[in-house]
Amino acid sequence: MKRREFIKKVGAGSLVAGTALAVSPMVQAKAQFKWKMVTTWPKNFPGLGTGANKLAQLITEMSGGRIKVKVYGAKELVPAFEVFDAVSRGTAEMGHGAAYYWKGKSEAAQFFSTVPFGMTAQEMNGWLYYGGGLKLWRELYKKFGMIPAPAGNTGVQMGGWFNKEINSVEDLEGLKMRIPGLGGEVLKRAGGTPVNLPGGELFTSLQSGAIDATEWVNPYNDLAFGLFKAAKYYYYPGFHEPGTTLEAVINQKAFDALPKDLQSIVLNACKVVNQDMLAEYTARNPAALKTLVEKHKVDIRSYPKDVIATLRKYSEEVVQELAGKDDFTKRVYDSYSAFLKGSREWGALSDMAYLDARDRD
Amino acid sequence: MKRREFIKKVGAGSLVAGTALAVSPMVQAKAQFKWKMVTTWPKNFPGLGTGANKLAQLITEMSGGRIKVKVYGAKELVPAFEVFDAVSRGTAEMGHGAAYYWKGKSEAAQFFSTVPFGMTAQEMNGWLYYGGGLKLWRELYKKFGMIPAPAGNTGVQMGGWFNKEINSVEDLEGLKMRIPGLGGEVLKRAGGTPVNLPGGELFTSLQSGAIDATEWVNPYNDLAFGLFKAAKYYYYPGFHEPGTTLEAVINQKAFDALPKDLQSIVLNACKVVNQDMLAEYTARNPAALKTLVEKHKVDIRSYPKDVIATLRKYSEEVVQELAGKDDFTKRVYDSYSAFLKGSREWGALSDMAYLDARDRD
Repeated sequence: MKRREFIKKVGAGSLVAGTALAVSPMVQAKAQFKWKMVTTWPKNFPGLGTGANKLAQLITEMSGGRIKVKVYGAKELVPAFEVFDAVSRGTAEMGHGAAYYWKGKSEAAQFFSTVPFGMTAQEMNGWLYYGGGLKLWRELYKKFGMIPAPAGNTGVQMGGWFNKEINSVEDLEGLKMRIPGLGGEVLKRAGGTPVNLPGGELFTSLQSGAIDATEWVNPYNDLAFGLFKAAKYYYYPGFHEPGTTLEAVINQKAFDALPKDLQSIVLNACKVVNQDMLAEYTARNPAALKTLVEKHKVDIRSYPKDVIATLRKYSEEVVQELAGKDDFTKRVYDSYSAFLKGSREWGALSDMAYLDARDRD
Repeated sequence: MKRREFIKKVGAGSLVAGTALAVSPMVQAKAQFKWKMVTTWPKNFPGLGTGANKLAQLITEMSGGRIKVKVYGAKELVPAFEVFDAVSRGTAEMGHGAAYYWKGKSEAAQFFSTVPFGMTAQEMNGWLYYGGGLKLWRELYKKFGMIPAPAGNTGVQMGGWFNKEINSVEDLEGLKMRIPGLGGEVLKRAGGTPVNLPGGELFTSLQSGAIDATEWVNPYNDLAFGLFKAAKYYYYPGFHEPGTTLEAVINQKAFDALPKDLQSIVLNACKVVNQDMLAEYTARNPAALKTLVEKHKVDIRSYPKDVIATLRKYSEEVVQELAGKDDFTKRVYDSYSAFLKGSREWGALSDMAYLDARDRD
């Protein structure tokens, strides 16, 4: 929308009010912008779907109702994996999902969500907001007529649910595991067979023995999904998703049609949700973990050291190979790697040293 | 301000505009609310002071100029340690500082910033937003006519700058160190002599030998302060400040006078800054650390294990004793401790296990 049209619209709103109360909350509550938000999540899915709901609600609340955002779950308006295209062509003004779903558009997109043995949530925020990450992300999505924004983080995920014990690298041989994306590629190099299945099929596939293992998210989400009923062991840590950033995408034209204050509200609402989701998972995972262990007697295991070392070696290979895909992915890889290197050096003196001091004897 | 007065003011604004453009950006830019924000920081102090500036700027930006917030550095309007009282009595509508400065009002306040061997930044956010922490914090400040909000975090700090080597617990005996608050009490129990000095006197006190050591913040802030020129060793980790939450305080009456959308904008701007400051430190510390090590040849040391064990033992004592101060502090201690317990259990499987897997062989 052009400036002139905006003023006309606002003007009309004022005339309807017909009094000097033109900017009172009552008139503001009359939505000037009605947006659709399509998402890659089942409607109201805990953490992820409810995070999208909160984002919509925040935008409406902070704008005094001048923007109303209606949230659509996966398949309600478009299927999950068409969120990117739907926002790109303007079918919806906004979307909520995760950048690694769009690797078909650009391999680089994966760095903006998570990569195996990559950054934690805190490091992702450092890189995205202050290390050039978001700038690169915007450059990529600009070609598709969209603005991306970090809008949620799961924190470190769990390794997954297994019906086979993993006692050595050999146990990965032939392991049929639902693990999509780069994590799957890592498993493949270690001799396993990665499978991609939608969330809704995990439980029965695990129970029937069609797969030996599956990763999902973290105790809070996994408990809700009931996966403990279909698997013997719950492995950690989730080397393949150490701090997955969720994304909001905003159609550029819809964004440009907003006045400056509403533009700021939309982008800052994304920032609020980015922090809020991690805080929610941080608070809810401990209780879910307790329920899994104490009530459901889940057998929690750590990947053995040599398995970790092997997975790390293949992860480095797989992530480094991305850099060879195209010039832009190389630039993103270089920026990401440089930041991660510095972050590991500082982390050794800060978070890692502190957790050692506090939690180890 | 009462609702009627608000409408009158808004009405007047519209009449001045005198046209149907009443809600255009131009009129919105006419501030309806002029707020003062007093801070405990030197004006524009990197990270902390600039965080306060960003908070003010965000509120103005998201409100389309309907609230203008003028930031005052320490001493410009009131001295640093009068920020709490100034906002409580309405001299300023807002303040930015840290809750542990107000332990004179209530010992409990310290839990809302940081305590020795306490929560990390991510854990603090989990506790405050989703674990009942902020609810307790609001209950406390309500008595003073204020609303508190988390508004920044330094992450894990460094141990500090030393001119004496700390090779064993015995080296803490008689150590004269600038370390205020609970950290100082811990040092005292370990045989040291805690000293409290304002930031401006650290350098000369260290250089003259009046003190043997001082803690400050982290590489980014410490480099700017030039402390490496006056000390031989830089110790880690900062057991006494593992994830210090900064605070915004808002005068309740000033808040109540705002329409709902502006109330939401003020509180959400605090959330944005809370995340933003941690991201900034996360991004800037690695480069500062590199400069300290490579350019200034700083000798970086970790506290020895037995020193850590001793400091941890005294920290537990000191923090636990707080619970005995009064009923409210006991409630805060109980909530904090329960959350930390669950968080450590989950952390052992997530952040700690992951950092081990990624960064240790």
